[in-house]
Amino acid sequence: MKAKAVGTFITALALSISASIASANTALPERLIPNPVGVSEEFAKFVESKQPAKSVSSPQTTEEWIALQTQFDAAMSEVTRLGMKKHGVTFEKKSIGGVDTFLVMPKNVSPEFEGVRFVHIHGGAFVFGGGEAGLGEAAWIANGLGVEVISIDYRQPPLHPYPAALEDTVAVWKELIKTQSPNATALFGSSAGGNLTLTTTLKLQQQGLPTPGVLFAGTPATDLKYTSDTWHTLQGLDPLGAREGVIDGTFALYSNGADLAHPLLSPVYAEIKDFPPTIFISGTRDLLLSDTVRMHRVLRTANIETDLHIYDGQSHGDYVRGLNYDFPESDDALREIRMFFDKHLN
Amino acid sequence: MKAKAVGTFITALALSISASIASANTALPERLIPNPVGVSEEFAKFVESKQPAKSVSSPQTTEEWIALQTQFDAAMSEVTRLGMKKHGVTFEKKSIGGVDTFLVMPKNVSPEFEGVRFVHIHGGAFVFGGGEAGLGEAAWIANGLGVEVISIDYRQPPLHPYPAALEDTVAVWKELIKTQSPNATALFGSSAGGNLTLTTTLKLQQQGLPTPGVLFAGTPATDLKYTSDTWHTLQGLDPLGAREGVIDGTFALYSNGADLAHPLLSPVYAEIKDFPPTIFISGTRDLLLSDTVRMHRVLRTANIETDLHIYDGQSHGDYVRGLNYDFPESDDALREIRMFFDKHLN
Repeated sequence: MKAKAVGTFITALALSISASIASANTALPERLIPNPVGVSEEFAKFVESKQPAKSVSSPQTTEEWIALQTQFDAAMSEVTRLGMKKHGVTFEKKSIGGVDTFLVMPKNVSPEFEGVRFVHIHGGAFVFGGGEAGLGEAAWIANGLGVEVISIDYRQPPLHPYPAALEDTVAVWKELIKTQSPNATALFGSSAGGNLTLTTTLKLQQQGLPTPGVLFAGTPATDLKYTSDTWHTLQGLDPLGAREGVIDGTFALYSNGADLAHPLLSPVYAEIKDFPPTIFISGTRDLLLSDTVRMHRVLRTANIETDLHIYDGQSHGDYVRGLNYDFPESDDALREIRMFFDKHLN
Repeated sequence: MKAKAVGTFITALALSISASIASANTALPERLIPNPVGVSEEFAKFVESKQPAKSVSSPQTTEEWIALQTQFDAAMSEVTRLGMKKHGVTFEKKSIGGVDTFLVMPKNVSPEFEGVRFVHIHGGAFVFGGGEAGLGEAAWIANGLGVEVISIDYRQPPLHPYPAALEDTVAVWKELIKTQSPNATALFGSSAGGNLTLTTTLKLQQQGLPTPGVLFAGTPATDLKYTSDTWHTLQGLDPLGAREGVIDGTFALYSNGADLAHPLLSPVYAEIKDFPPTIFISGTRDLLLSDTVRMHRVLRTANIETDLHIYDGQSHGDYVRGLNYDFPESDDALREIRMFFDKHLN
């Protein structure tokens, strides 16, 4: 037993109130972190199968961003197509309120969800995931819950920065609630899609429009400013990479000079009132864990009904990988989402 | 923008399904982690005021453990006494069912909690926190909720290993419910106290005894085996220190050769049925974050009513520091606990 270990232990538990040395940083030594073991065998295998990073040259111009978008979305579309095929999920293009969307259809619709379509806003750091590339999560929910899903193919940077995406999601919502009850409709998305799920709802409130009956915000980006702790603490443990570089780049492209602390960009700064019940999901290796739990607290402080579920060892959005991989944590997440939706939807 | 950052980002989002290189470890380089900033000013100041670790010599014998216990508990008692004085909380010794306890009394009892006493099981890695040293959390709840609290001064290692602590908590419970309704009684504790809150309830179920109306398990140690991910990922970010060393030592002292996977030692391995509603609290820098969220999932999988609250930047048990320090996150935690108790207690 090392003397230092005892020392830190004692210090922590003794809640020392004596004078101390202020420090603004913690120095961490080089380390080797074992893969998570308190998880299912299937998820452990999935973690082991994750690919090491490949070097990709960095976009510097609009054209280069578009080239990267194209390349990335093509790869992602391929994966999504395989996942949909595996579960017999189909889709068709559909224009709603002048906006491109996809109607995503499960093999079987649950009796309770007949006649209603949920609304999905895809992720991809605001820049990626357009077209079929963004359908993975919609298909995961459509198949897992047995419900038809409208997935919004909103306009994206570099050509269409903020607030184009929100204009599109609001336009689809306004059109959709002409034919189905907003209280019976769930709105959901992960990562940037989680951000847009929350900010779309804020924008609907601003415009005095009916809001969804329930939200699922998966590992949402809720503070585009670089203030959340897990961007730092978990760097290197989440294949998402680092905040510096392409992620900062996408946030800059999307915000296009607008104040990152604006609530429609960073909902963690919103004044919340009468918000829909919201379920959050994240993991202990998710770079956006802090963004997730901070938004959870913002809603809780306003006495909004929420659920928070954190999976051990999961990185950013791992639960959605259940479309392509079989692991019980993904089914468990679907079960929680379904229970939360059942509880709060009319 | 670095090429590698783009690469990892793309890899993560593309959900690659191609053949890949299995890896059982992640190598992290030396790093400097800034203090959390997405927190209250008061909590940020508290984080800066945390003392650096002091070297303490390591116990090797029973006598050395007792010496460390004595030294540690004396320091902790001093802090606890100051916190109680600050809030006008008083206490007296009380033997219940042959077990030493303290009756902890707030300055003012809330009308709703008149005539009922909640039950507290203190933390301290099963070895520390005996006597007045363990009253901090009891006083925090007593003052914050306006309720009288029975804090159990259970027998501890090295002289009294498992299952002495559980025998004591069960004995107190059996005696207490002769005079007050179990459904009106909350049982709570953090760290090892969170473990004993959960395992006491399991033991009550085994014995066919009535269980508490509601539980608060703060950052509970739920898997004494070394399997939870955040023991590794957050090492160095939580003043609790490292798993290796004194913490492993205390778990060994407590379990005394019993199987660490036994549900009464590691409740994450319990088969849960009809468990009381349970509220969990942890933080993104809490070494026991994984232990907390894993137990949350175990209860959720059994459809138990739960609440999970994670505070950004908080290390192990930081919320309890609200007894001595003023920061809004601690008041917020009290508010959540009170709301959860109000909802579930008769």
